[in-house]
Amino acid sequence: MKASVYYGKGDIRIEKVPDPEIQDPTDAVVRITHACICGSDLWFYRGEEPDWKPGFRTGHEWMGIVEEVGRDVRTVKKGDRVLAPFAFSDGSCEFCGKGLFTSCIRGGFWGGDNLGGQAEAIRAPFADGTLVRIPEQASNDERLLTRLLPLTDVMGTGYHAAISAGVNSGKTVAVVGDGAVGLCAVLSARLLGASRIILVGHNEARLKLGQKFGATDLVSTRQDAQAIEEVIQMTHGGAESVSECVGNRASFDVAIGMARPGGTVGFVGVPHVQEAIDLDRMFRHNISLRGGVAPVRGYVPDLMEQVLAEKLDPSPVLDMKVQLDDVPKGYAAMDERQTIKVMVRP
Amino acid sequence: MKASVYYGKGDIRIEKVPDPEIQDPTDAVVRITHACICGSDLWFYRGEEPDWKPGFRTGHEWMGIVEEVGRDVRTVKKGDRVLAPFAFSDGSCEFCGKGLFTSCIRGGFWGGDNLGGQAEAIRAPFADGTLVRIPEQASNDERLLTRLLPLTDVMGTGYHAAISAGVNSGKTVAVVGDGAVGLCAVLSARLLGASRIILVGHNEARLKLGQKFGATDLVSTRQDAQAIEEVIQMTHGGAESVSECVGNRASFDVAIGMARPGGTVGFVGVPHVQEAIDLDRMFRHNISLRGGVAPVRGYVPDLMEQVLAEKLDPSPVLDMKVQLDDVPKGYAAMDERQTIKVMVRP
Repeated sequence: MKASVYYGKGDIRIEKVPDPEIQDPTDAVVRITHACICGSDLWFYRGEEPDWKPGFRTGHEWMGIVEEVGRDVRTVKKGDRVLAPFAFSDGSCEFCGKGLFTSCIRGGFWGGDNLGGQAEAIRAPFADGTLVRIPEQASNDERLLTRLLPLTDVMGTGYHAAISAGVNSGKTVAVVGDGAVGLCAVLSARLLGASRIILVGHNEARLKLGQKFGATDLVSTRQDAQAIEEVIQMTHGGAESVSECVGNRASFDVAIGMARPGGTVGFVGVPHVQEAIDLDRMFRHNISLRGGVAPVRGYVPDLMEQVLAEKLDPSPVLDMKVQLDDVPKGYAAMDERQTIKVMVRP
Repeated sequence: MKASVYYGKGDIRIEKVPDPEIQDPTDAVVRITHACICGSDLWFYRGEEPDWKPGFRTGHEWMGIVEEVGRDVRTVKKGDRVLAPFAFSDGSCEFCGKGLFTSCIRGGFWGGDNLGGQAEAIRAPFADGTLVRIPEQASNDERLLTRLLPLTDVMGTGYHAAISAGVNSGKTVAVVGDGAVGLCAVLSARLLGASRIILVGHNEARLKLGQKFGATDLVSTRQDAQAIEEVIQMTHGGAESVSECVGNRASFDVAIGMARPGGTVGFVGVPHVQEAIDLDRMFRHNISLRGGVAPVRGYVPDLMEQVLAEKLDPSPVLDMKVQLDDVPKGYAAMDERQTIKVMVRP
């Protein structure tokens, strides 16, 4: 089969690789029908992931059709349309039991030295714990499938940013970052009933999409101190909930700086922060920091229900579509910020 | 009257100063009967608080007897025995309404350019919002008064460390730091029903006191990595709740390092951290960081009830007693770690 393989900074190639096979009785082999390129893929693409080695597989967001299952698999069967979260998990350990699927003791992440989702097929370990079956109603409806695809990562991650920030009915929330995750955090805040949603970003087109998604206010200055000041002013003292959806030093400073005393920053951007964050402000005003890598597996069933009920549509974040052979072009387009997020149709 | 005044690194003097007077109708003037020296006072004593200027008053932990009240004061009257938390607050703003008294819009802290508690008397702004009346039962009982005195700060701060770390019935909690706050965090964890309380510190005598206070396990290595490893081993993966009661880089690393995936670090030590904390581990395992300066005013009524019901006794942390004239000796003794915490009897 064909798969996307990493060779170094800016060097992604589509290559012939061995077909995946069942190895353990809890495995499934899935033919991939839909995949994505993620903003977090740009870290290795830009050469900023020292652990990434030539030959690593790429892609952690995918859906497909089950081709074969191991003898212990119970919840999916050949021919089922399935969605995978970006991490696999056994569904039975202490942390899976608590809903923290990304800390599964036997789990892991697609890509790297595991098989990747930017490929024609994949082996899925712990198929029962990992894969979510897509109901008949949607399984041949391309419109609904495209809406479901972001649930593999960015929609679940944006939802985790909102949940971690303590967003609920009537709350004022600021979302820092207008990438796919930030935009999905806006959708999530609306879904959770926030009364005011302030989106902080730099890109006009993305901010406009954020408005369609439910943002009530936009803050677009490139001056971080001014962004903080604007949000402090418009909220008379800061936002109760802040979703940090970028993961660098500046975005942490902005998020902590605009949080209201007693408020919570939910963070989901992979942190690439070498310097100190503003613990002093957190201390003085009892601002909490919660979040981390999103346990998307736990959110998929509810979010899928919302999509199927026509109440949630994150598909506009997928504003470019490529064939598998053109995945390298997709990386380049995302790297140059020509596109929010790329959908791959192997 | 006499009061303790800061003049620079290691230079605390007892001086004659003007008597405090009612300035606003919401003020009270209180004759101080009991005060303390706090571990956090050592920051300025050691010259590590650049904002501290010669002439600043010292002391933020005190109790006393009301001498005079302004015309708008309703809840305390002349002759009442009262306890003050280390911050004053109006009791009526948004943040006081939420229980976040230390973020009171019109509030502040004793000492510095406000009057200090290491003195014969003090003016208390917002007497109704700030002062807590000590019931008759205790007001002339020296044993109970000594037990109540730590509620002015360290007991409430240790309680905030436990509450912020999410301690409740049946939880496993690690407490980092065997100073007065850490020891009070142990008492708090027991009060809140923790089933296992691991105290991490270096001082044999303090660790023993921690055991009396309810610690079920002691970790005393001076190697941070080994302390983390010991707690990970004994808890099979980390403590669900960790109370960080020191506030330096090493203690944050230890606290985050020994938190269980999905767990919470409650931090209450004034952060003196210039470097990055381990956001990467927090991210990978969804470890939350909560806490800050303790809104002690909100905890005092409940904790006072526990003391009066003979269910709580933090007084053993007060292991040295001085007259007001000997306050400088008290600072020196705490600086040299000859004592956990000094009680002052003006």
